[in-house]
Amino acid sequence: MIGIGVDIGGTSVKIGLVNNEGEILDKITFNTPKDFYELVNAIKNNTYSILKNSNLSISDICGIGIGCPGLIDSNGVVVSSSNFEFKNAPLKGELTKRFRTNISVCNDANASTLAEKEFGIAKEYNNVIFLTLGTGVGGGIILNNELFNGGDNSGVELGHFTLNYNGKKCGCGRKGCFEQYASANALINQTKELMLKNKQSVLWKIVSNDINKVNGKTAFDGAKKGDETAKKIIDRYVEYLSNGIMSLFNVYRPEIFIIGGGLSAQGSYLTDKIYNYCKKYHFGYEGVKPPIITTALLGNDAGIIGAYALVK
Amino acid sequence: MIGIGVDIGGTSVKIGLVNNEGEILDKITFNTPKDFYELVNAIKNNTYSILKNSNLSISDICGIGIGCPGLIDSNGVVVSSSNFEFKNAPLKGELTKRFRTNISVCNDANASTLAEKEFGIAKEYNNVIFLTLGTGVGGGIILNNELFNGGDNSGVELGHFTLNYNGKKCGCGRKGCFEQYASANALINQTKELMLKNKQSVLWKIVSNDINKVNGKTAFDGAKKGDETAKKIIDRYVEYLSNGIMSLFNVYRPEIFIIGGGLSAQGSYLTDKIYNYCKKYHFGYEGVKPPIITTALLGNDAGIIGAYALVK
Repeated sequence: MIGIGVDIGGTSVKIGLVNNEGEILDKITFNTPKDFYELVNAIKNNTYSILKNSNLSISDICGIGIGCPGLIDSNGVVVSSSNFEFKNAPLKGELTKRFRTNISVCNDANASTLAEKEFGIAKEYNNVIFLTLGTGVGGGIILNNELFNGGDNSGVELGHFTLNYNGKKCGCGRKGCFEQYASANALINQTKELMLKNKQSVLWKIVSNDINKVNGKTAFDGAKKGDETAKKIIDRYVEYLSNGIMSLFNVYRPEIFIIGGGLSAQGSYLTDKIYNYCKKYHFGYEGVKPPIITTALLGNDAGIIGAYALVK
Repeated sequence: MIGIGVDIGGTSVKIGLVNNEGEILDKITFNTPKDFYELVNAIKNNTYSILKNSNLSISDICGIGIGCPGLIDSNGVVVSSSNFEFKNAPLKGELTKRFRTNISVCNDANASTLAEKEFGIAKEYNNVIFLTLGTGVGGGIILNNELFNGGDNSGVELGHFTLNYNGKKCGCGRKGCFEQYASANALINQTKELMLKNKQSVLWKIVSNDINKVNGKTAFDGAKKGDETAKKIIDRYVEYLSNGIMSLFNVYRPEIFIIGGGLSAQGSYLTDKIYNYCKKYHFGYEGVKPPIITTALLGNDAGIIGAYALVK
């Protein structure tokens, strides 16, 4: 049945009308209001607009799903989020007052994970880990075909298991967390670090000699050109990333890992390398296969599609 | 209802008649036959014996649960186990041919975990991680009140996530796995290592100057006597153990961690130290509480009781 998916972000909110194939039929985007009640009312007004555009009424849809950053409890309350000033905001409760339909709220990374499971690359799999490599590392977990949030709805901090005991300081207070080594930001830092030690590297040319222009793509571009420094950076980054993936694999045994975020643009150039590491080092009894490593399929629309999947 | 719990070990098999309070009413122990069919028949004969002793027939019991080391697939096949020479052994299938009752098979560490959840220290909790600290590190996970085995029934290798990237070599082929730092064996090695550097330590007296007598208790005994070397060993060991516990916590968010194996004899002397670390370093949004850290309640009988819990 047709439904609404709402992807709340720190800067913009996207509302989509989605059919049961996971196709977005219509979409509205607006700036995220800072005030919680303004946000709720903006979702209300824009949802009614999008329905009106398609000559639909609220009774024609299966419900409204919402993906929102931060810790969302099982009652759909936004307990807290670094993106918003409000806290303990009853998002589901306030939307339920405004719509006579099924409302469901989950964390935004979970929504993207669900989208890949329901309509994307992970359709065929029961146990899935989605890793978004960005400023930090986030993501979601599907266990036995359902979203897993951890106890108290507050787990799945996929950036904050240890990769290097006594290693780099992490914002969480501990040392050596996975995201200090495997986020896109970490790759950028690793790139800059080795560039400063190798002034002849072609990487300098790629960024027009301006180290501030280094991004998550820089080292990949250099490696593809055969630059030794860049290859070293990528090899080491892949080792960090793969090592963390193996830690998750040995405990969860998902059939598939999905890489999301900007680095997913590297496609099989990145995932083949990770797979080769996993194939060599995965641990388990005879017959346990290494996981499939792939990139996300749904891109920026995953948030809307996954939010819809909550109520479909 | 009354039922049978079978705890298959590498050296002995224990069969218990268990009531629905988790109490063992009668118990038989025999050596583990090496041949699979001898094992199956020994379980058959001893189960009928124990039922006969209590004037029960097979129709009086709710079923027979079995805990067995190794990888057990979802059909109750013992795919492989380092304890046995046989492989791909259809344990559930062969027992089903021999008993007209409900048969269920799981991994032995899972059985102990289930026992603590159903009848032990974790009765009140929905999400539980049980860690056995022995030669290696093993254990089980309860998620949303059910045993979690990971995809392909083969996950929950709780000794094999990374604690120290590029650290000590592990039997699994990778480096720096948790069990290289947090098993009882690791503690023994850590104790010996610092003893050799500190010939004045009271630890030498505890082991009558024979370093081969060092066991998992030695450093604890020394620390309780105020020995500085021993305190250093315990502090570092607690840091390793707690760090791994935090990695699991940040992803799963169990309400409770249970410590099993010989070190659980240290009780709150050990668990208070782990809790204090977790309280300081646990990561999460405001309001996320550190986990409860405790020791196992059911001891050696957990295997039988947990196996029974599979069919109760």
